Amino acid sequence: MSSKSLQHFFNPTAVAVIGASRDRKKIGRQILDNIISGGFTGKIYPVNLEGGRIAGLSAYRTVADIPGKNPAPILAVIAIPAAFVFNEIKKCAARGIKNIIVISAGFKESGMNGRRLEEEIAIYARAKRLNLLGPNCLGLVSSVSRLNATFSAACSGSGRIALLSQSGAIGSAALDWLRMKKLNFRYFVSLGNKAVLSENQILDYLQTDHDLDLVVTYLEEIDNGEQLVSLISRLSKRCPVAVLKAGISQAGSRLARSHTGALAGSTSAVRAGLERAGAIWLDNLGDLFNLLTITDSAGRLAAVKPDQKMSLITNAGGLAVLAVDEISRSSLPFGRSEDLLGDADAKRYQTALNRILKDKSVNPLLVMLTPQTATEPVPTAQAIIRAARRYPDKMILASFVGGTAVNPARALLQENNIPVFDYPEEAIASWAKVFGYQEKRKLVTPYQPHQGSTQRPLASGDYLESFRLLKRYGIPSVSSRRYDDTQLRRYSYPAVLKLVGPAAWHKTDRGGVILNLKNAAALKAAALKLKKDNRKMIGTASAYLAVQPQVSSGREMIIGFKRDESFGPLILVGQGGIYTEIAKDLKITTGDLNQARALSLIKSLNIYPVLNGLRGQKKYNIAALARALVSLSRLAKGHPEIKELDINPLFITGRGVAAGDVRIII
Amino acid sequence: MSSKSLQHFFNPTAVAVIGASRDRKKIGRQILDNIISGGFTGKIYPVNLEGGRIAGLSAYRTVADIPGKNPAPILAVIAIPAAFVFNEIKKCAARGIKNIIVISAGFKESGMNGRRLEEEIAIYARAKRLNLLGPNCLGLVSSVSRLNATFSAACSGSGRIALLSQSGAIGSAALDWLRMKKLNFRYFVSLGNKAVLSENQILDYLQTDHDLDLVVTYLEEIDNGEQLVSLISRLSKRCPVAVLKAGISQAGSRLARSHTGALAGSTSAVRAGLERAGAIWLDNLGDLFNLLTITDSAGRLAAVKPDQKMSLITNAGGLAVLAVDEISRSSLPFGRSEDLLGDADAKRYQTALNRILKDKSVNPLLVMLTPQTATEPVPTAQAIIRAARRYPDKMILASFVGGTAVNPARALLQENNIPVFDYPEEAIASWAKVFGYQEKRKLVTPYQPHQGSTQRPLASGDYLESFRLLKRYGIPSVSSRRYDDTQLRRYSYPAVLKLVGPAAWHKTDRGGVILNLKNAAALKAAALKLKKDNRKMIGTASAYLAVQPQVSSGREMIIGFKRDESFGPLILVGQGGIYTEIAKDLKITTGDLNQARALSLIKSLNIYPVLNGLRGQKKYNIAALARALVSLSRLAKGHPEIKELDINPLFITGRGVAAGDVRIII
Repeated sequence: MSSKSLQHFFNPTAVAVIGASRDRKKIGRQILDNIISGGFTGKIYPVNLEGGRIAGLSAYRTVADIPGKNPAPILAVIAIPAAFVFNEIKKCAARGIKNIIVISAGFKESGMNGRRLEEEIAIYARAKRLNLLGPNCLGLVSSVSRLNATFSAACSGSGRIALLSQSGAIGSAALDWLRMKKLNFRYFVSLGNKAVLSENQILDYLQTDHDLDLVVTYLEEIDNGEQLVSLISRLSKRCPVAVLKAGISQAGSRLARSHTGALAGSTSAVRAGLERAGAIWLDNLGDLFNLLTITDSAGRLAAVKPDQKMSLITNAGGLAVLAVDEISRSSLPFGRSEDLLGDADAKRYQTALNRILKDKSVNPLLVMLTPQTATEPVPTAQAIIRAARRYPDKMILASFVGGTAVNPARALLQENNIPVFDYPEEAIASWAKVFGYQEKRKLVTPYQPHQGSTQRPLASGDYLESFRLLKRYGIPSVSSRRYDDTQLRRYSYPAVLKLVGPAAWHKTDRGGVILNLKNAAALKAAALKLKKDNRKMIGTASAYLAVQPQVSSGREMIIGFKRDESFGPLILVGQGGIYTEIAKDLKITTGDLNQARALSLIKSLNIYPVLNGLRGQKKYNIAALARALVSLSRLAKGHPEIKELDINPLFITGRGVAAGDVRIII
Repeated sequence: MSSKSLQHFFNPTAVAVIGASRDRKKIGRQILDNIISGGFTGKIYPVNLEGGRIAGLSAYRTVADIPGKNPAPILAVIAIPAAFVFNEIKKCAARGIKNIIVISAGFKESGMNGRRLEEEIAIYARAKRLNLLGPNCLGLVSSVSRLNATFSAACSGSGRIALLSQSGAIGSAALDWLRMKKLNFRYFVSLGNKAVLSENQILDYLQTDHDLDLVVTYLEEIDNGEQLVSLISRLSKRCPVAVLKAGISQAGSRLARSHTGALAGSTSAVRAGLERAGAIWLDNLGDLFNLLTITDSAGRLAAVKPDQKMSLITNAGGLAVLAVDEISRSSLPFGRSEDLLGDADAKRYQTALNRILKDKSVNPLLVMLTPQTATEPVPTAQAIIRAARRYPDKMILASFVGGTAVNPARALLQENNIPVFDYPEEAIASWAKVFGYQEKRKLVTPYQPHQGSTQRPLASGDYLESFRLLKRYGIPSVSSRRYDDTQLRRYSYPAVLKLVGPAAWHKTDRGGVILNLKNAAALKAAALKLKKDNRKMIGTASAYLAVQPQVSSGREMIIGFKRDESFGPLILVGQGGIYTEIAKDLKITTGDLNQARALSLIKSLNIYPVLNGLRGQKKYNIAALARALVSLSRLAKGHPEIKELDINPLFITGRGVAAGDVRIII
């Protein structure tokens, strides 16, 4: 589906409402009313079995009756009981209508029958190349064509924000909130069950719209992780894309599955993928609404530069101290703070605003206020509004802390597009998200979803076979050989003896690793003991003894990958050895590593200063570690049959790296 | 100052307002009006140079003229220019008035002259045993005597919350917010400049009040950290005490100093002290206001048990998933979640509430809602209010997400003391704070501020002298001797040679440590080289060579203490060696360690599973480590001249511990 094909979906010349009713309480009628009152400029066709007139318009008994020759630019909105939906979709297709929104519920979310019906519709719609949104959704608002095709009231103005929500319930809460805040937006898309159109097709279309300041997405499941990363990595070069992913905890993910009936991507995959794409990560609804708040400043977001420092004005020293604490916590550059003192009136704020905003380095400016004796909240708000008009390129934020005494001033600021927050920390945390995005923006490169270029697949996770695979990809290993008591002279001593077998074994736990065998006799004795203790296992195809030289120098790292069904292989690097889980010093990223990205991943580890030669200690070969990571990402692409691969320990020294152990799960 | 002495301060039988004016805009008059309209039941005496009548009451020219024999229960509120304040305080003292609030600004916060004046007043007030609040404060609300002695409007009802604020500006914002939320409180104390009364005297008084559900304190500087820890550790056995400390970042602390003109305690000291005391830590104003919100449930906080699980009701699956994510993030026990689906009306909520609340294990219950087609926000709120009345022991929280459509329902919930939050995560984070407090409550023991029982003080941080000090306190060390080339046979080999000197040196950085000297010859050669390289230093009293046996077994830990001017010695334990700063695995607590607290401190380290024998590896002697920490805390008490002491590395093995290096700063 190309982005072009959604042109008429977002900009229809006519809308047919199937299920429009004379009963004002019916959803179909509410949608019709919203389309009319929203001021949609195209033709509006109510469709109702009984025909006649609805809401002052001629109703048609079926879409087939809709006049005109070229029906492609018609958008059909279907709001009838689930059982009749498929038939109407077929009629739409027959009439040549390509763009359809199915509002009706009663599909995948309602049980087996609904799921089957939805699958049939999806197969049909794909075959007919229909752009079908839903089912079980709230609809679409596209302010560029003044279209409110939802059953919720919405703002009528046209803004620069796109809002995508998988949940209709959260979508309707957002629309209600936006209306209260008098915040305009450009698109609102309720994704619903995503039978055909998902977030990815919508994001693809948004690439073509250059009037966006922010894209905010609420997702419960991710349709195709690699495609999502690819789309956001492109879109976020131009405008910030923020994602709130529900179900990131194990318990939340279980609940999301029971709720949406689908598998969610693994949390670490989602985080790694979105970070790679340069997306803004939202932790919760407060984050989401606060980000919408800060974006409401007429395109100023686009002017944000990564060297900007946040400055403060306050009539309460304590607020400034708390704000600076939060600025520090967010690792944000801080400019200056001006305390106008507790008896500051609006005039003193105005004088300070004029003086401070002249300073080119002041941007953004957070104006804080608490109600005290001489405080004039509304006139102070007016002074801020005037200042913001004089400096259209600067971002001026406000936080008026209090209740009754400051509410009218807050409302006034909102109406005049000054982002206003209940507490300073909300303004600062939102600015930190925008600033963090701007810092990363230039570094983000387009993500290329990986093409399956399969090598001869690996048959099993056999131990020595696994080492041979590493070798083919240029990842050095400690010399590893099958134990043979006729070859004792060939091994290097001190030696390590390992009982190797199915990948699920944890060798150290099972006492299957014997270290520091000083000579052939010791090795032979150890082999006898291991064989005796594990008589039942040894002899099966997958279990045998292997010998390696003992490595006593170097530091132990771990590298590996795990294949996520949605996001592809995720590469891991960190402190290794038996303390991997104690150090908890692991970083994960997407599988498209090059040397530069591998190096920056290594630099983000806590252990990095040690690798780089802490306090005059020796340096480790970081470049070799990065090369091993890049090789690993090539290996992951070449062998899609491998679900998981861990090299732990990977010994690193000043000279290079060597895999000490490898575990592959097919 | 005993807690008893504030009895009349909080419960005066009469109030004199010095600076009461006929001009309704003057602060003195606003205070008088607030006292009258608040319904204060005692006598009210306006004091004004001109006498006559003010606000319908007889005014006195001076406090000396106030009639009556026993003036102790009179509270005097002074709101006149700073220059005249001292004189009025003297008149109060002469008249026998012990309780005084100085509202006037123009003291410490305004510069050198103001600071000097405030110091004079403080010395006088202490000598005369006056309970003096302020100066530069907002005043006092004590709802037990229906007294609003501030110049802010305040709620008139009597609640169960005490609010202490060092900042008048943040205090006035809180009063305004509380009024908007119709939230009642018991005491509001604006601490101002804390010339005489500080948070500690107020907290001491609150120990006697058994009708408190919550004490919330906003502080910019801490008067006496050890005393604060002691007071909160006692108070928090009975009711939660929450603290928002401004200036916890370096930059914030600098700004706080410039604002309050005083030294703040070190951040780690403040955190360790408040954690020891069982206080609830607040990160920001949102935390503070949300905690006030959740407390508003008529004494239900006291009934919270540490085994409670949070349950959910929702009409939006997405909200439940996000809520469960947040519950996981906060490591809270989770009960059940009931999705009433998007078309739930008030009746369905009511039925569900009745059914779910019957389950004894459901408490707290968070009821969530977003506005959808069939949603009835106000009737749903009414159903919640009825359910809360039927289950007075259960904590029922609400989060109605949206804007215009849910605002009336939110207001209704607020008016009926149902804690209602904009977003579910705010309800959950606040519950997590209360729950965390309840979990810790039983473990908190009263903190005993340390009495200076000085031993013979240490003259310097000399290296071998420091080891002898450790020995006196029973902390084992690696045998450490001064290098003497006539004694080469006496040392154990392999040996370590160290150039020791002033504590500020970082030996490893300076190449002043030579490891693994296998025999006497190697040691001698190393000594010659070190002497040659450091010719200028060696020979001074404090720099010489020391010899230790090389330790090759065991793991390196760090233990130590640092004395905070306010909080006393703070004990530290963590992963040691040269990677201390990489592992960042350090825990800090107050200096009153016993074996049990030392063990629980060690258990909170990331490395603890390793010390305790990870995966069948050997166990380290954790009891010996704990004993060393307890000894260290005794040493810290015995030697107040020591500012800082670090033992790094402290070797730990299965048998015990031994200090490998020690650094003392006097």
